Amino acid sequence: MKSFISLEEAIEILNNNVNNLDIEEVDLIDGLNRVISENIYAQINNPPFNKSAMDGYALISNNTELSNRKFKVIDKVYAGGVCSSAVNEDTAVRIMTGAPIPKGANAVIKQEDVTLEDDFIILKKNIKENENICIKGEDISKGSLLLKSSKKLDYADIGILASSGINKMKVYKKPKIAFISTGDEVVDIGLALGEGKIYNSNKYSILSRIKELGYEAKYIAHINDNFHEIGSYIEEISNEVDLIITTGGVSVGEKDLLKDAIDTTSGEKLFWKITIKPGSAVLCSRVNKSIVISLSGNPTAALTTFELLVKPTLEKLSGYQEIKINREKAILSKDIKKKSPQRRFIRGYVEVNNCKQYVHITQTKSGNGILSSAINSNCIIEIETNNDGKNQGDLVDIIKL
Amino acid sequence: MKSFISLEEAIEILNNNVNNLDIEEVDLIDGLNRVISENIYAQINNPPFNKSAMDGYALISNNTELSNRKFKVIDKVYAGGVCSSAVNEDTAVRIMTGAPIPKGANAVIKQEDVTLEDDFIILKKNIKENENICIKGEDISKGSLLLKSSKKLDYADIGILASSGINKMKVYKKPKIAFISTGDEVVDIGLALGEGKIYNSNKYSILSRIKELGYEAKYIAHINDNFHEIGSYIEEISNEVDLIITTGGVSVGEKDLLKDAIDTTSGEKLFWKITIKPGSAVLCSRVNKSIVISLSGNPTAALTTFELLVKPTLEKLSGYQEIKINREKAILSKDIKKKSPQRRFIRGYVEVNNCKQYVHITQTKSGNGILSSAINSNCIIEIETNNDGKNQGDLVDIIKL
Repeated sequence: MKSFISLEEAIEILNNNVNNLDIEEVDLIDGLNRVISENIYAQINNPPFNKSAMDGYALISNNTELSNRKFKVIDKVYAGGVCSSAVNEDTAVRIMTGAPIPKGANAVIKQEDVTLEDDFIILKKNIKENENICIKGEDISKGSLLLKSSKKLDYADIGILASSGINKMKVYKKPKIAFISTGDEVVDIGLALGEGKIYNSNKYSILSRIKELGYEAKYIAHINDNFHEIGSYIEEISNEVDLIITTGGVSVGEKDLLKDAIDTTSGEKLFWKITIKPGSAVLCSRVNKSIVISLSGNPTAALTTFELLVKPTLEKLSGYQEIKINREKAILSKDIKKKSPQRRFIRGYVEVNNCKQYVHITQTKSGNGILSSAINSNCIIEIETNNDGKNQGDLVDIIKL
Repeated sequence: MKSFISLEEAIEILNNNVNNLDIEEVDLIDGLNRVISENIYAQINNPPFNKSAMDGYALISNNTELSNRKFKVIDKVYAGGVCSSAVNEDTAVRIMTGAPIPKGANAVIKQEDVTLEDDFIILKKNIKENENICIKGEDISKGSLLLKSSKKLDYADIGILASSGINKMKVYKKPKIAFISTGDEVVDIGLALGEGKIYNSNKYSILSRIKELGYEAKYIAHINDNFHEIGSYIEEISNEVDLIITTGGVSVGEKDLLKDAIDTTSGEKLFWKITIKPGSAVLCSRVNKSIVISLSGNPTAALTTFELLVKPTLEKLSGYQEIKINREKAILSKDIKKKSPQRRFIRGYVEVNNCKQYVHITQTKSGNGILSSAINSNCIIEIETNNDGKNQGDLVDIIKL
């Protein structure tokens, strides 16, 4: 097992140990936020037939001037209907938006551009071929690529697939997740807080973050500081779930609780501690089919390493091609005076002002476990190793939440 | 009823007709994405007691130099435990990260900064008062404002509330939503597509968008072009739901289907048609306790007016103070050659490059109902009335999805 490695090495180890889950078929209506496992092509033309873009009259436009020409209206067609009549050079069909163009017709004149006279219309202006017609396949032609494999589906994708009549598709399975908080000092909310105890905020923030990202935890447990119990619970569920997230017991006290717990399982430790702050204390293991990511019990550290390691792991399990942290640049709005011997990740709020992306630090107090810095934060600012501080106006890397 | 009004007038009418829903109490674990209806204050100090930030030894630091001083280790305390012993100037207590500081002690020396000798430690360096101690309330002090009323809760907010032991809170009720697609031409996916028919993409894109925004539709129906049936269904459910979204029947054909449908109900029409493109054909009504927003059947128009009118209406129902569209500026990456006599909303993709926010147009084809422009789009670009086109580098208003 590697120890005290860089974040990049940790991600490489995860990439080598985390695979896309199996593929399953789901109904389109359940497809939101799922990642497709194959290219999807248009099954039909869209629109599927030449249709009217306007309420008006369908007729034949040839190369002659048609203004003041008179046409007999021989039929009427609504959207969803079919016109059995064909038009000739002297006839027209009343047509509504979305209705199929009648046989023979090659143009639609808007209703406001004609004068009605009994069963006849007189054109107020000329009309050209294909005017006011949505041509079959003009939006999407049959057989064209709609969506590429590995795309996570948003609502517009679902709409496009529906327009092509696709009602089932192959996607990667959703990861099954277990969350285990540990610690003798941790008490669940709603209970009385005894002396020396703290409330279990990690359980609530991490379960909510999992939900926010579109996943859900199948198992949720709290186990006190007993490595046998923790280990046997991990072993028990490690064939049921794809990812086990634990909090606590990675750097605290004389016992390395989670390391000892993993040692009681059939699994192996992959890496231990990464050179970042906060969140250096993180243990990653594989037990049966599960990846186990053991985060610090310190809320700030736990939430930071969740974003850096757990979120991209969930994405790869769900079908993304690799575990990867996406960074952007932002302009720092205030000096950071503090020197950083270590590579640091601090909470920030990013916003765009006059087309420029600025980031403000939301961590106003210093100290361990400053959970309050997470309030109103929407990104993490990365500060490189051996940094003497940053100035207002400097460009920094940010990781959006 | 007002007709052909501006988007701003439409929003003002909605603001006057849409109220926050009632308040209910929910468990913290169900609080994600809910909007709180009152300020929430910290119930306890966080941390709740002075605790150790390190694994080490708790002792008394006075104003004298302590390096090379010897202390007898008289007890041990883990996180979650309580130490019954008090220290004096010659004694120390072995202490783990997160454990409460024993009586008398005012500093913790890190374990790596001492030498062990039987039951004694010898300090390798001096230590100052409060060093390595997280002071009670240093993160959040009891009684301080945690979250302001009308805040939509994210995972970090849920974590903060948990750390204060808050397990229930008052939030605005979630809007109950009905979705009704209309149109004789519309066929559900999975069925054969008859002549002149199209697949019902609006149902799938709009239901997915509702889900993406954290809501869900309680009633989902498709009704053919029969205004009596549409009207009586709207009347029937209008006391059960807060918002009814319909698609189709607002501008098509000779009959104003949705206007006629509303006329059969006990409700009233609020406005009809707004001066934008696409999506000008939109009808807004109130029927019993429901707001009814009737969108065009054209997918692009429907998705545009959904973002402009439906999304902010859902937000106000859920507890936001007003119906409001949030705009940002972005730099246009390519010319828009097309002239715009009308105020136009087109699909785009916004991204930040080197701290600057650029927007690209995703609509590459022109025509009605170009659903394909929604693919890979993450914003809507607004082009003002009577515009002769835009140049690369121009600043434009965008509405992020």
